[in-house]
Amino acid sequence: MASQQRIFTAALVVIGDEILSGRTHDKNIAQVATWLQIQGIRLKEVRVVADETPSIVEAVNTLRARNDYCFTTGGIGPTHDDITVDAIAEALGVPVIVHPEARAILEEYYTTRGGLTEARLRMARTPDGASLIPNRYTGAPGIRCGNVFIMAGVPSITAGMLDALSGQLEGGAPLLSETVGCWVGESEVAELLRETEKTFETCQIGSYPFWGEGRTGANFVIRSVSAEDLAACTRALVEGLAAMGRPAVPGGI
Amino acid sequence: MASQQRIFTAALVVIGDEILSGRTHDKNIAQVATWLQIQGIRLKEVRVVADETPSIVEAVNTLRARNDYCFTTGGIGPTHDDITVDAIAEALGVPVIVHPEARAILEEYYTTRGGLTEARLRMARTPDGASLIPNRYTGAPGIRCGNVFIMAGVPSITAGMLDALSGQLEGGAPLLSETVGCWVGESEVAELLRETEKTFETCQIGSYPFWGEGRTGANFVIRSVSAEDLAACTRALVEGLAAMGRPAVPGGI
Repeated sequence: MASQQRIFTAALVVIGDEILSGRTHDKNIAQVATWLQIQGIRLKEVRVVADETPSIVEAVNTLRARNDYCFTTGGIGPTHDDITVDAIAEALGVPVIVHPEARAILEEYYTTRGGLTEARLRMARTPDGASLIPNRYTGAPGIRCGNVFIMAGVPSITAGMLDALSGQLEGGAPLLSETVGCWVGESEVAELLRETEKTFETCQIGSYPFWGEGRTGANFVIRSVSAEDLAACTRALVEGLAAMGRPAVPGGI
Repeated sequence: MASQQRIFTAALVVIGDEILSGRTHDKNIAQVATWLQIQGIRLKEVRVVADETPSIVEAVNTLRARNDYCFTTGGIGPTHDDITVDAIAEALGVPVIVHPEARAILEEYYTTRGGLTEARLRMARTPDGASLIPNRYTGAPGIRCGNVFIMAGVPSITAGMLDALSGQLEGGAPLLSETVGCWVGESEVAELLRETEKTFETCQIGSYPFWGEGRTGANFVIRSVSAEDLAACTRALVEGLAAMGRPAVPGGI
């Protein structure tokens, strides 16, 4: 039981001018967040930083120190704007090397695709002491250095890397959740939410309002590591809403 | 000319457990990023933090100190999990007050909607010394305290608040961009990109690969504050691609 109580945390650093300019809508935050939930790891913070070495170094060094795991996405391709490996090596205080295993993977991958050029060989560069995260799509692997996991920016490739890491990282009890929706203004139920949350110590209730069909509604998300408390808290909330003449919609609206 | 060279920067703090859990896909990062571009303000960093006071205080205090503007989204509703105003007051070292103007707005808004309850009155609370950002959708205003702009989490309401702020903030020359696409592996053009960027000092070139129709392609985004340099750099890149037998697609693929 005690070991189940240990909470494992992670942070994500999204590296990319294209996100900060608004040109590209990030898809990696939601994808990494969802994957971490399943691994029983709590995503505590995300930072989106520019393609600039000092910004990457600061974010990675702050976040790897205060979390069990630190993930990065973006900036590991073959072009001049791909500076993630160099920046993280600097953050870790180690040199960049050409990783022999990564080089072998790329040599094989490019055998039928025009050969391993100097630009492509850039993708075999890793901080010294790293291991690789397989990428079944384009050869170029992700990189693990201690608790730092360096992944691609292209969401489909990141998905493959996460898949390769599934079940590989130690996690705690996953945070469970239940959602109930209700056609009610959230200000009308503020007191009920506060009191219900207070009654169930292991539970948090989030309230997410929306407007639709000319009416006001909200979804309430109850979260807990205890399945029992989660069920009891959800039941109490549904009963409280019913007592106000506001039937709850299981699963949300 | 000299005043045009001053670069104005902003940061965004997205406050929300629902984003970190993967339940909700954030839409405010792209929306705020795009809006800032038009105002001539450079978005330098985004942080997504949990609904926890210390996390909000740390992010806001770090980012407001090193940027011209610091925006936040989320956590300003009527329920117990809406702690943004209190956290930012703590960050600024000022008390929370009930803002008379905000109270008047809410009183009017709720006249025909069941009256101003205690929960609803929470939305009139601001850090002391704040001014308001109008919200034409639901009455409850956004809040400005010095260079900190506190906005809603619901993207359509945030959009209204950004609209109210349009043209109100001092910005510099907007960062202009051109995109060209090409059916080419980015590793094949890595050298061309690097050399072209080096030739045009005010320009940055970003390379964004993709896979589609069974082929490999990339979009190249050239950015500059100088329209002249941007045009010249784009022309040089297109000519370089043509010389390799790789015709560029204006506007991207």
